[in-house]
Amino acid sequence: MPGTKVDVERVFHALGDPTRRAIVERLSEGPASVSGLAAPLGITLTAVAQHLQVLVESGLARTEKRGRVRTCSIETAGLGALERWILERRSGWERRLDRLGDLLAEPDKTES
Amino acid sequence: MPGTKVDVERVFHALGDPTRRAIVERLSEGPASVSGLAAPLGITLTAVAQHLQVLVESGLARTEKRGRVRTCSIETAGLGALERWILERRSGWERRLDRLGDLLAEPDKTES
Repeated sequence: MPGTKVDVERVFHALGDPTRRAIVERLSEGPASVSGLAAPLGITLTAVAQHLQVLVESGLARTEKRGRVRTCSIETAGLGALERWILERRSGWERRLDRLGDLLAEPDKTES
Repeated sequence: MPGTKVDVERVFHALGDPTRRAIVERLSEGPASVSGLAAPLGITLTAVAQHLQVLVESGLARTEKRGRVRTCSIETAGLGALERWILERRSGWERRLDRLGDLLAEPDKTES
């Protein structure tokens, strides 16, 4: 879904499931058919299709149907949203470290 | 838990819950007491304690008791594990892009 705003809430929900995480791990190595995803995971095509639906809605995968074969690929929007969320958390504690650094660099007024 | 190997499975499970994510978002801004976390979230101290337990076990938070007050802070190990998981996925598709680039750069043998 290009142009669709990715909700980090959906991304966390999607990746909280180990099977969906395994699908994303597999797709990051290259595109795969639905049956190509199902076989190593030992799950049904229907189960893969349901997981894919969640992954597509959270911006982690996309699917394309050519004739009778549906090809699945990684979508970077979801992982990008996840990265931004982590960076925002990191910037919070880095700001605090900066403030602490400023405080320690201040001349000690009690000694003057 | 310094030195403890953080399991990305636990991190995803922990952050799949919106309340726990809100706690991590709050702690990334600075340490807080259990009651300081409970008030803005509108949940009980017991609920906060249960969520904190999950966050501590997944390397996302740590708690320290001084007298009667338990102070909670962010722990970077869990977010680090999450970042590494994303980087591994990203390196997968970047390798594929590199291979595609090599392929396109090869001289076209059909024309010689």
